[in-house]
Amino acid sequence: MSSRKEFRDLAPPEEAHEAIASLDLEPDPETVPLSEARGRVLAERIDAELDVPGFDRASMDGYAVRGRDTFGADEADPVKLDLVGAVHAGAEPDVTVGEGEAAEISTGAVMPPGADAVVVVERTEERDGRVVVRTAVAPGDSVMLAGADVAAGARALGPGTRVTPREIGLLSALGINEVPVRGRPTVGIVSTGDELVRPGEELRSEAGQIYDVNSYTTAAAVEEAGGEARLYPHAGDDYEEMERILVEAAEECDLVLSSGSTSASAVDVIYRVIEERGELLLHGVAVKPGKPMLVGRVGDSAYVGLPGYPVSALTIFQTFVAPAVRRAAGLPEPRTATVEGSMAVRERYGEGRLRLMPVGLVESGPATARSGGGDAAERSSAGHQTKSGETADDEAGETLVYPVDKGSGATTSLVEADGVVEVHPDTEYLAEGESVEVRLFSPDVRPPTLFGVGEDDPALSRILDRLERPRYLAVGSRDGRRRLRGGVPDAAVVAGPSDREVEAVELGGWTREWGLVVPPGNPDGVTGLADLADEDLRFVNRDTNSGLRASLDDAVAEVAADRETTSTELTDAIDGYELGTKAYESPARAVVDGNADAGLGLRQTAESLDLGFVPLGTETVRVWANPDRTEKAGVREFERAIDDAGDVFDSLAGYDRD
Amino acid sequence: MSSRKEFRDLAPPEEAHEAIASLDLEPDPETVPLSEARGRVLAERIDAELDVPGFDRASMDGYAVRGRDTFGADEADPVKLDLVGAVHAGAEPDVTVGEGEAAEISTGAVMPPGADAVVVVERTEERDGRVVVRTAVAPGDSVMLAGADVAAGARALGPGTRVTPREIGLLSALGINEVPVRGRPTVGIVSTGDELVRPGEELRSEAGQIYDVNSYTTAAAVEEAGGEARLYPHAGDDYEEMERILVEAAEECDLVLSSGSTSASAVDVIYRVIEERGELLLHGVAVKPGKPMLVGRVGDSAYVGLPGYPVSALTIFQTFVAPAVRRAAGLPEPRTATVEGSMAVRERYGEGRLRLMPVGLVESGPATARSGGGDAAERSSAGHQTKSGETADDEAGETLVYPVDKGSGATTSLVEADGVVEVHPDTEYLAEGESVEVRLFSPDVRPPTLFGVGEDDPALSRILDRLERPRYLAVGSRDGRRRLRGGVPDAAVVAGPSDREVEAVELGGWTREWGLVVPPGNPDGVTGLADLADEDLRFVNRDTNSGLRASLDDAVAEVAADRETTSTELTDAIDGYELGTKAYESPARAVVDGNADAGLGLRQTAESLDLGFVPLGTETVRVWANPDRTEKAGVREFERAIDDAGDVFDSLAGYDRD
Repeated sequence: MSSRKEFRDLAPPEEAHEAIASLDLEPDPETVPLSEARGRVLAERIDAELDVPGFDRASMDGYAVRGRDTFGADEADPVKLDLVGAVHAGAEPDVTVGEGEAAEISTGAVMPPGADAVVVVERTEERDGRVVVRTAVAPGDSVMLAGADVAAGARALGPGTRVTPREIGLLSALGINEVPVRGRPTVGIVSTGDELVRPGEELRSEAGQIYDVNSYTTAAAVEEAGGEARLYPHAGDDYEEMERILVEAAEECDLVLSSGSTSASAVDVIYRVIEERGELLLHGVAVKPGKPMLVGRVGDSAYVGLPGYPVSALTIFQTFVAPAVRRAAGLPEPRTATVEGSMAVRERYGEGRLRLMPVGLVESGPATARSGGGDAAERSSAGHQTKSGETADDEAGETLVYPVDKGSGATTSLVEADGVVEVHPDTEYLAEGESVEVRLFSPDVRPPTLFGVGEDDPALSRILDRLERPRYLAVGSRDGRRRLRGGVPDAAVVAGPSDREVEAVELGGWTREWGLVVPPGNPDGVTGLADLADEDLRFVNRDTNSGLRASLDDAVAEVAADRETTSTELTDAIDGYELGTKAYESPARAVVDGNADAGLGLRQTAESLDLGFVPLGTETVRVWANPDRTEKAGVREFERAIDDAGDVFDSLAGYDRD
Repeated sequence: MSSRKEFRDLAPPEEAHEAIASLDLEPDPETVPLSEARGRVLAERIDAELDVPGFDRASMDGYAVRGRDTFGADEADPVKLDLVGAVHAGAEPDVTVGEGEAAEISTGAVMPPGADAVVVVERTEERDGRVVVRTAVAPGDSVMLAGADVAAGARALGPGTRVTPREIGLLSALGINEVPVRGRPTVGIVSTGDELVRPGEELRSEAGQIYDVNSYTTAAAVEEAGGEARLYPHAGDDYEEMERILVEAAEECDLVLSSGSTSASAVDVIYRVIEERGELLLHGVAVKPGKPMLVGRVGDSAYVGLPGYPVSALTIFQTFVAPAVRRAAGLPEPRTATVEGSMAVRERYGEGRLRLMPVGLVESGPATARSGGGDAAERSSAGHQTKSGETADDEAGETLVYPVDKGSGATTSLVEADGVVEVHPDTEYLAEGESVEVRLFSPDVRPPTLFGVGEDDPALSRILDRLERPRYLAVGSRDGRRRLRGGVPDAAVVAGPSDREVEAVELGGWTREWGLVVPPGNPDGVTGLADLADEDLRFVNRDTNSGLRASLDDAVAEVAADRETTSTELTDAIDGYELGTKAYESPARAVVDGNADAGLGLRQTAESLDLGFVPLGTETVRVWANPDRTEKAGVREFERAIDDAGDVFDSLAGYDRD
C-alpha cells in the first residue's frame, strides 16, 4: 500500500480555475438547421442578404392608388377612382394603376406599378365599378417600402448572440435555415471502478456492485452547461485498459472527465496514464472536497479528474468545470445559478482550506404572529393562494440556508442539498443570520415549498405526492422532533409515544396499526412479542429514531413488567432486536427475502407485501408545524392536504384519522 | 369585402386566460431513458426498490476487523491482528474475519463476514503478515450499512419533481434507467397565407412572397415552454385545404396554433373551420395586440389563433399560451421570466384596453460624476472588469425600460425589444422613472451590455463583433443624435457634417471615403456629381437620416453654388435623388442588380462588391457616449474596442483613424 499517491501539496483553488482555463475546450463551429438553433450561440455575424420586405408592400387592406389622385378628398367631397383590378398577398400584380385608377389590395400584397399609397378599406366604398375614396393619402401611406424592415447588407445579428425565439424570428425573415453556431464541447466521461454497474443492468450486491452515479450525474451537468456528454465503458484499475479508454476518449472529445471511483488504486492508474500520455497540470486542490481533483491533458484533449463521491463530484464539476464548458460553448453564466440567503443556524468551520459546503434552502414564508395555536381552518383561509401553487415574492419571505452533511458518500445528499456555499479558509464560523451566496446545483433548482422531517410513513408519502415540490427527510420521529426544535424545518411528523413536548402547532394526524410482520400464513405461529424472546426466531427491528421502535420499546417494557424482568433482559433474548433498519418496509422486506422470521412493521406493509401480520397496537402519527412558519403557503397546503386525506387513510390497512 | 368578420365584442384578457385554461392540453405520461430525463418532470412518485448501498460497505481504505478486537489499542499500545486476506471493491469477499484477524479492504468493498468495522490504513502498519492497529474502532466505524443511504421501500422522489443532474444521480443510484415523466404537449403550428415561403427555399419577391417568420418563432417558443412543436404545411385561404390541415393537426396534437397571416380572408376561413369542426370559445381579446386572437377547440384538440404580426404573435403566445403549455408539461414559470425596471422615458397611453407594450432594456451602469469629458484612457482603466465580461450586479446599475414601437409589422422589433410591459386600460401614462415589470420574450433574454444607435458603417459592424452582447440600431446619424439627446441609448455613432451640438463624451472616431458607386469599369464614365444631373443616369440615394446623405447634400450645395443655381434645382435634375434607401449597401446593390447607374456609397462597399468608385470626399464617423453612462462597463469596452480597431481600419478601403 506504500505505492498509493498522497497529494500533500494542494493547489489553491484559483490555480485550479487557471489551469482549467488554460486548456482549450473550444470545439469548431458548426452549422445547424434553424429548427435546432434555439439555445445555441451564433459563431459569426449575420448580415442581411436580402431586403425585408423584398418589395413595396401594402400594410393595410384597401385600395392601391396614386396618392396625388386623392389630394383634397374627404367625407364631404370624396374622389371617385376607376377600379382596374385586384392584388392579393402572394401574387404578382397583373394590373397597373394609372391616373384616376385604383386596385383592390390585401395586406401584404405587392404594390402594383403606378400606385404609391394605400387607402384603407374603411374610408372607401365600391359603387358601380368605381371606388369612392373619402380621405386623402400621401405617397407612402400604408405602404412598407422594400428593405424598410431590414435592408440587404445590414448587420442583423452579432457573433455570440444567444438564439432565442426572437432571433429565430429574424433569421426566418432573412430566409436563413442553416445557422452557423458555436460548437458544443464534447465531454467524454470515463468512470472508473470495477464495482460500477450501469442503471438498468443487474446488480450483484453480494459482489459489492453499485450503480454508477457519477457518470450519469456528470453527463447531465455537462449537457446543462451546454456540452455534449459521451459515456465511455467503465475502466477498472488495469493500466492498459485505462490507457486505451482515456486515449480513445481524448481523441474523440474536447474534454475528458474521469469520475466514479473512490478507489485509490484506480486514481493511481489514471495518474500514471496522464503523466505517460499527456501532462498533469495539478493534482489535488485545497478545497473540501477537492483533494483528489486532477487537471491536465491527455493527447490534445483537456482532462479533469473528479472526486469519487457523488456530491463531491457534482460540486467540483459545477465549481470548476461547468464555467469552462459554458465558456467553450459561448454561453453566459445562467442568471439563476446563485441565490442569496441567510444562515438558518450557526456553522463552525476553521479547517484552513476552502470548503464547498453543501446546503439546503428553506423559505421562511411571511412573518407570523407566533399565535402558537389557534384554529387551523381559520389559518388556512387567511392570506391568498397564488396561481399554480407558486408563492409570490413577498409570500416567500427570507431564504434560509442550512448545511447538509450526511457524509459525502451519501447519494441522498445530492437531493437533500440545493447547492453549495463557499466557506473561505480563514472562516471560523458562519453566524446564524449571516448572509451567504448559494451556488445552486442546477439553475433549475428551487427551494422546496415545504421542508418536512420525521417519521417514514406510507400515508404521509401519499399526502406528500399531492404537494408541489415538498422536501421530506425521513429521519425518524426522534430526529424529526429534534430538528424541528432546531428551527430549520417547516414541519415534523412524529409517530408513537412522545417523551418530550414540542413547541409547535399541530397540523393534523392519524393513527396506524403496528405489529409483527411474518411470512404468509404465519408459519411459526407467532402470537406476540413474548414469542420473539422465547422461540428461536430471527427478528428485524427498526432504528431507535423511528416512532414504531418507540412503540415497540414501550410494549417490550410492558411484557417485561408482566414477566417481572427488565426490558434489557427481554430484548437480549430477542435475536436481532438491536439491529435497527432505517425504512418502514425494511424489516418486512427481510421477511420476504427469507432473512427474518418476523419484523417490526405496519399492517399496511404486511398487506401490501402479502405477508402475515400479528397486531401489537395502534400508534398516533402527528404533524407539527414550526410555529414561525404557520403562515407559509407550503405549510398551509400541507395542513389542507392532511385534512383532505380521508381517501388515503381509507385506502390503507390499519389507518384511521386521529 | 362586406363578409369580413369584425370582432367588436372583445373579451377581457382574464377570460382569454380562463378559456385557454379550460382546454385540456395535457398529454399522457411517457417513459424516457435516464439519459434524456434531464429537464423533464416526474409523472409519479419513485420509491426505492433496493437498498443503497446494497451491502455493508467499507467507507475507507484500511482493514476490516472485529471492533472488539481493537478495544484499548492506541499509538503506545497497538494490537496485532493476523492478516487473512484482502477484499477489493467490486469483488465478493472470499475471506472471513475471525477473532484476532483482519482483512485488507478498499473503499467501497463488501465487508467480509465476521468483520464489523474498518481501521483506516493511516492508523495501521503491515509487519510480517500481521497488521499493527494503533487505534480502537467501534463496531460500525468506517462502514456504511446496507440501506443507510437509501432503504428499499423509502420514498425517493415525488411526482412533479423537475429532473436536474442531482435527481439523475439519485435515479442512477436506484438503478433506474427508464424514467416515468409527464408528456410534453404536442403543439401543431399551421401557418396561413399564400405568400409564405419556408426559410431556405427560393423567394419570389416580385410575387409578394415573404419568408414565414411566425411558424418558426412560435415553434421555438413552444419548445422553450416545454412543448413539442410540429409544423404543418402552409394553408392558403381555401376552406377545404384549411379544414383538412387543421383537422389533421388536431388529430395529432394536444394544441393547434394558427399563425402567420395578416390576411383577413384567411382569418375568416379559419373562423368558419373552427365553428364547423370544433367550438369557438372566444374571438378577439381586449388587448393590444390581441384583437385577432381566437380560442377554441378543433375536434379533441385545443386551438388558439395568434395574430399575424411577428411581435404580436410572440407577445400573445408568451402571455396567454406559454403558461398553459408549461402547466400541461408540469413545468413551473421560469424564474427569469420577468425583470423589474423603471421607465427611461414618459410614455402616454390612454387607449382603454390592456396594452402589451414591447420594450427594450438598457442598464444604467454605475452612477457617474458626469465628468463630461476627461481622459479616455484614464476612464478605461478605472474600475475593474469582471470575469468573462459579465458585469457584477452593483456594476449593472438600474434596469431602464423604453418602448419599442416600429409598427408591429416589423420583424426587427422582435430583436430590438426584450419583452413586454402590461399597461392597464385605465393608465393614462407611464411616468419617467416609474417602476414596471417586464415579461421577457424568453427567459434567456438579457439586457445588452451596450445600447448604441446611429450610422450604419462596416467598420463599426466589425467593432461591434468584438463586444459581448451589444445592441446597435442603425437608425442613421440624425436619429442617432436625436435619440442620444433623449437619454436612452448608451452611445450614438454619428457620421458626416454635424449641424447640431451633442452634449456627450467622445469615445473615438474614424474617417471614411465616400462617393459614387458605379458598375465595374465605370461604363458611363461618371466623373462626379454634376454628371448625375447632366447625364441620363439612374441614381440611388441614402435616406436623410444617414450621415452619408448629409455629406452628399453638402456636396450638392457646393456644386449648385459653383453653377449659381439652388440645390433643389440641381437635385430635381438627378433621377432618384429623393429616393432614400436605408442601409449603406443598398444603393450599391441596386447598381449590382442593374437597377441603377450610380449609387451613393463608400469606397469600401464598391471594392467589396467589385464595383467602380468615383470618390467625392472623406467624412468623419464619431462615437459619442451618453454622459450618464461613461462608467458603464459596456461603454468602456466599446471605447477600448474602438481604440484597438487599428486592424479594422487597415483592412477596409478608404478608412482611417480620425
